Amino acid sequence: MLSNLLRSEGHMGTTLRNVQPLAATSPIDIRFEDSRIASITESPTTPPPGDDVIDGGGKIVASGFFNTHTHLAMVLFRGLADDVPLQVWLEDHIWPIENKLRAEDVYWCTLLGLAEGIRGGTIGFADMYFHCDEIARAADEAGVRLLLSPGMAAPSMDEGGAAKLDATTHIVERWHGKANGRIRGALSPHALYTCGEDLWRATIERATHIDVPIHTHVSETRSEVEAWREQTGASPVAHLEQLGAFDVPFLAAHCVHVNEDDIAILADRGVHVAHCPKSNAKLGSGIAPLRAMLEAGVKVALGTDGAASNNRLDMIEEMRTAWILQRALHEDPMRPSADEILAMAATSARALFGLEEEALAVGSRADLILIDRGTLHATPAHDPLSTIVFAANALDVTDVLVNGNWVMRNRELRTIDVERVRFEVEGLLRRHGN
Amino acid sequence: MLSNLLRSEGHMGTTLRNVQPLAATSPIDIRFEDSRIASITESPTTPPPGDDVIDGGGKIVASGFFNTHTHLAMVLFRGLADDVPLQVWLEDHIWPIENKLRAEDVYWCTLLGLAEGIRGGTIGFADMYFHCDEIARAADEAGVRLLLSPGMAAPSMDEGGAAKLDATTHIVERWHGKANGRIRGALSPHALYTCGEDLWRATIERATHIDVPIHTHVSETRSEVEAWREQTGASPVAHLEQLGAFDVPFLAAHCVHVNEDDIAILADRGVHVAHCPKSNAKLGSGIAPLRAMLEAGVKVALGTDGAASNNRLDMIEEMRTAWILQRALHEDPMRPSADEILAMAATSARALFGLEEEALAVGSRADLILIDRGTLHATPAHDPLSTIVFAANALDVTDVLVNGNWVMRNRELRTIDVERVRFEVEGLLRRHGN
Repeated sequence: MLSNLLRSEGHMGTTLRNVQPLAATSPIDIRFEDSRIASITESPTTPPPGDDVIDGGGKIVASGFFNTHTHLAMVLFRGLADDVPLQVWLEDHIWPIENKLRAEDVYWCTLLGLAEGIRGGTIGFADMYFHCDEIARAADEAGVRLLLSPGMAAPSMDEGGAAKLDATTHIVERWHGKANGRIRGALSPHALYTCGEDLWRATIERATHIDVPIHTHVSETRSEVEAWREQTGASPVAHLEQLGAFDVPFLAAHCVHVNEDDIAILADRGVHVAHCPKSNAKLGSGIAPLRAMLEAGVKVALGTDGAASNNRLDMIEEMRTAWILQRALHEDPMRPSADEILAMAATSARALFGLEEEALAVGSRADLILIDRGTLHATPAHDPLSTIVFAANALDVTDVLVNGNWVMRNRELRTIDVERVRFEVEGLLRRHGN
Repeated sequence: MLSNLLRSEGHMGTTLRNVQPLAATSPIDIRFEDSRIASITESPTTPPPGDDVIDGGGKIVASGFFNTHTHLAMVLFRGLADDVPLQVWLEDHIWPIENKLRAEDVYWCTLLGLAEGIRGGTIGFADMYFHCDEIARAADEAGVRLLLSPGMAAPSMDEGGAAKLDATTHIVERWHGKANGRIRGALSPHALYTCGEDLWRATIERATHIDVPIHTHVSETRSEVEAWREQTGASPVAHLEQLGAFDVPFLAAHCVHVNEDDIAILADRGVHVAHCPKSNAKLGSGIAPLRAMLEAGVKVALGTDGAASNNRLDMIEEMRTAWILQRALHEDPMRPSADEILAMAATSARALFGLEEEALAVGSRADLILIDRGTLHATPAHDPLSTIVFAANALDVTDVLVNGNWVMRNRELRTIDVERVRFEVEGLLRRHGN
């Protein structure tokens, strides 16, 4: 009881002992106070009296993952008609259900997506969907980081655009910075080809004014890019540049069909690209020029997209897919390296989530994951980096700490009632006749 | 005690109740007696008195996987220098240890590989390595199916080829058909370019004489195929055809760089291809023309290759890699379908393991796996086939039955002492200074 009293007054911290970092050979102890890392020292240390002490058991410690483009609530459609053409899939399977989704449905489905993500070590989600107050509420309760991205589409400002921009601005302003800074907002026109130019211009102006990023789909399919070029003479990336879209922090999902000129713009303007290799593969969109983007210095991060086109929200599997596709395509066993792949999953998009400081450093937010290296499929564990990138499963993640709070301990989720979530999602499916 | 007596006299069977097949909407009960399936009936049934009754709990039931090209003992090298060129990897990392491996070392490493495979639902392994008596002993004890493939290489019959062919023939004859038919043998010249033509001719003759297949590497890298064409004017596949190699059952690993003519030969001659997409990606070998092979009717199965170039022995991940690469490459969301992918993993290579009858049919060998469909990452589970191919983890496999014996129950291996295997493999690494 005394211990609890002291804790609530903030006098104490937590010492996480005996964890294996990626870069060093010796295990370390990490101490954090409230939401920040207070010290990182070679093991063993003597924790200050009164600290909570947690034995890491030699597990790998790493920065948690950021899923930089997803539609969490679409877990509802996981495995629903995988092998059909896009139009059939949308018209016969997705839209009939999606059109009937209530705010509360999105809340439960988002929680299910968050649960899967946390289970696999994801601590931040750039989530583009609708009923966004429910999404923010779910992320707040789940204890994770969120880039809330209320999707909008309209042919022009007059035809619904102005109202939608105002509505999404209100949502973003309501949540930006909330939950101890874990929730951030972005304006999210769906794509260049689904939002009129005046809406795009107004969105850029608004994003500048309220100081939030823009998050949108860019050059996902070959046909989309070809149609846009035919119509306007410019590539989508060049067009966005001309509009001034890259004057604000910008998160461009997909960028599958970008050419050398596009890549130069993306690099030069510091655009964040959310590379979604598995969704691009499953939907037959193609293979993004990842190596060229990395070589040009583009800030590439990874995203799963929605579970309907993946079918997982698994950042380890997304890392695996990224290196498999590039090494096979370029017939090069050396690139991308494990380092490059892990950076895309864990660190390259931190700024979009309001984290300007280095990951896993003294003074930084206490965000980390622990990974079991004693599984059969990771034995022998010659090298922790190799274990994560080339051998681990999502289920090998054992503990997840976000902003100083454990959202998973010993493979048990602590912020989400998984059985309740299942119950609600199953009820929702029954209502829709599935 | 009475029950045990009756069992040993073979009067009873086992009824596995309430499992979900891929093709039907209703759960089924499967009854087996000794090593064969006695009945398959819609649930619920009344098991005969005296049967062992096991509740499948609504799990997915499917045919177990066949890993048709691997080097199990190379789990020892998992994660050892992943991002270096092939020659550096071989000369600085692999060969120095491999040259010192003793027969007993290969036994323990093979068991570690088998344990990982079983854990992920693999019931049969085409394993090409050395110290093959130890490999056969490990597979016998582990209770799995094995296509024992003692690797051999020699420039000619006079320069070691004759002796090696005799030695491997003896090993193959010693084990072929043993362990209640679970172990089969194959003659395994390493490749066209590492074995002299007279050795190849003698091997084909020997395989015909002792009635076993040939298992070898074919057209794995671009440079290998180009060099062969330059030297002989023929592709490796065309050359093998001219030698008469396809007159015996033939398992060709890789076939990455095969052209239309090669594919026509492979289809026409009923050659089994072990497609190893992840290894081919990691080593930068390229992407095999899987779609063209499937369309031509080639009998394509899946293999992981060794863990050193994968880094897993995970057939679910191998399925995932196969569809990801092909859908991305061809920009086609419909092919390969989930059905085609699962057939490559589970059924297309059964004949090589001596299983001529259909999988999961009355009268067939009782080989099956159960898969948990209640995991977070498979929820909601709209469709069992989709769950396996697009969403499942290796760790979702809960039970593995081979030839009527449970080698894994409720995620616990029953034939391999995993802690002992770890202990031995770690001791082996310490001896080699790793």
